[in-house]
Amino acid sequence: MALSKFSIGIDLGGTNTDIGLVSAEGKVIARACLQTAQYFDVQSFINDMVDAIRKLILENNIEKIVGVGVGAPCGNYYEGSIDDAANLNFRGKTPLKQMLEAQLHVPVMVTNDANAAVYGEMIYGDAKGMKDVVMFTLGTGVGGGIIIDGKLLYGSDGYAGELGHAILVPSGRKCTCGNSGCLEMYASIRGIIQTYTELLAQFPNELTQIPKESLTPKIIAEAAEKGNTVAIETYRKTGEWLGIALANAVVFSSPEAIFLTGGIVNAGEILLKPTRESFAKHKLFLYKNDIPILRSQLNENDAAILGAAALLV
Amino acid sequence: MALSKFSIGIDLGGTNTDIGLVSAEGKVIARACLQTAQYFDVQSFINDMVDAIRKLILENNIEKIVGVGVGAPCGNYYEGSIDDAANLNFRGKTPLKQMLEAQLHVPVMVTNDANAAVYGEMIYGDAKGMKDVVMFTLGTGVGGGIIIDGKLLYGSDGYAGELGHAILVPSGRKCTCGNSGCLEMYASIRGIIQTYTELLAQFPNELTQIPKESLTPKIIAEAAEKGNTVAIETYRKTGEWLGIALANAVVFSSPEAIFLTGGIVNAGEILLKPTRESFAKHKLFLYKNDIPILRSQLNENDAAILGAAALLV
Repeated sequence: MALSKFSIGIDLGGTNTDIGLVSAEGKVIARACLQTAQYFDVQSFINDMVDAIRKLILENNIEKIVGVGVGAPCGNYYEGSIDDAANLNFRGKTPLKQMLEAQLHVPVMVTNDANAAVYGEMIYGDAKGMKDVVMFTLGTGVGGGIIIDGKLLYGSDGYAGELGHAILVPSGRKCTCGNSGCLEMYASIRGIIQTYTELLAQFPNELTQIPKESLTPKIIAEAAEKGNTVAIETYRKTGEWLGIALANAVVFSSPEAIFLTGGIVNAGEILLKPTRESFAKHKLFLYKNDIPILRSQLNENDAAILGAAALLV
Repeated sequence: MALSKFSIGIDLGGTNTDIGLVSAEGKVIARACLQTAQYFDVQSFINDMVDAIRKLILENNIEKIVGVGVGAPCGNYYEGSIDDAANLNFRGKTPLKQMLEAQLHVPVMVTNDANAAVYGEMIYGDAKGMKDVVMFTLGTGVGGGIIIDGKLLYGSDGYAGELGHAILVPSGRKCTCGNSGCLEMYASIRGIIQTYTELLAQFPNELTQIPKESLTPKIIAEAAEKGNTVAIETYRKTGEWLGIALANAVVFSSPEAIFLTGGIVNAGEILLKPTRESFAKHKLFLYKNDIPILRSQLNENDAAILGAAALLV
């Protein structure tokens, strides 16, 4: 499968909105960026988005685009809207598809960012040729995207695959969604920092060079590489939790492979090794096939754009 | 959808194997039974099954059957086999489809019992017209069946939907599968008896009339109906756990409804009320549609037969 002509892929985030012109071969050949957080009026945001798209088309001598794909937090595939995204200034229901189509006169598809990521992985990445795939996006939050028999799983209301909000630890850490113990509270930026802080309290004699205010998963990972016991244990526990979540994904949809992406995964083996160990330990014996845990190899800046554009394929 | 002619549905269990002749309208019009546990040689089991099927066809003046559907523990849809079922005398891989087709010369389809149950519910039961459904079968074990866009979910190796082995409580109760904390250890016959026993130890002053050796979920449910505090608390806790498992199923596949079936569900409201309360509490806010928790209304003796026969539809 390949895009028959050029398309636009948009990675709409709370801070930035990255717009890419994507070739039939799945290359981002030109890009533009809007600062989402600076917009408080949705119509001017859409107008600037349309201007940027037209400029990309014009400057690259493109005759016609196939359409526009958007990956956005709380993107609603069925309705083409963004619904109550917590980290956007425009609240309520934003009818993105309708607003963009009114000006651009090409098909517009909307999905959530994690769905776009796993779809891009299947069309352009290492999941090419696979039909059953699960992806976890580990960053500020934890997202999920599920491919069943070669198609994105949306379910009855378009919100299937919210794997960050599967409850991992009943009565566990309080989550921003209102529940307790969601995976997101253990395998996101915030989760890792909390794990480190909790462990530090258990090891009061641990010599640590990380000042509290500069704690990030990256700094904790670097400390772990240098042998900091608490930092190592932080990633071991994170991997242990994540491995259980992965094993639970397997009993649901029995994927061929599980992909991980997002900033947290940059910790590399310090996270992946305990994750694989926990997954091997917790995977139900019935699943005899090897189910590899893979890092997405798509360029982080392009993956969401490519995934969004792939919706048009 | 309806069966175009007559078919055979088989509910193959560890104790009994129920064989039903099923009409195009989804009625079990005649049945036979084999005592599975008495067979130690798989070929004689298959021979007797074939004889019973031929007798049903002959005695009911059926000209031709469409095929045979079998629901069995560890039934492998892709290979048509039963693989290492713990509660059957025939170990290893039993090539059921191949063995039956060799003698009957009609298509034979094999799936696991929970898949047959949810499929029967969609073809003949209250899930008729639904396209996204999850079913939990609560009995000796806990099984699961998932319908995605009108089709049974099998995943990459045919074993998707093993919801009884989703890990509900990390490092929780030791499960027969080797893991700890599986849903099965909280919402099965054994799980409920264990919960009751554990709670009893916490309420040493509770006057109880249930002798240890006669503990069953049914007797505990009856005691709860009569006001036995420990029995009530047993079902409240079971419902609390089950509600979390149901909420976790929703973040995966976003079903229109969740169905419950199996002996445990006969406890009725004493289980269903706390289950619904826990589900409402734990369901992610994003899912705004009402997702009803429904008891299967199919006759318990017919449901698995109908579901197996429905595989031929």
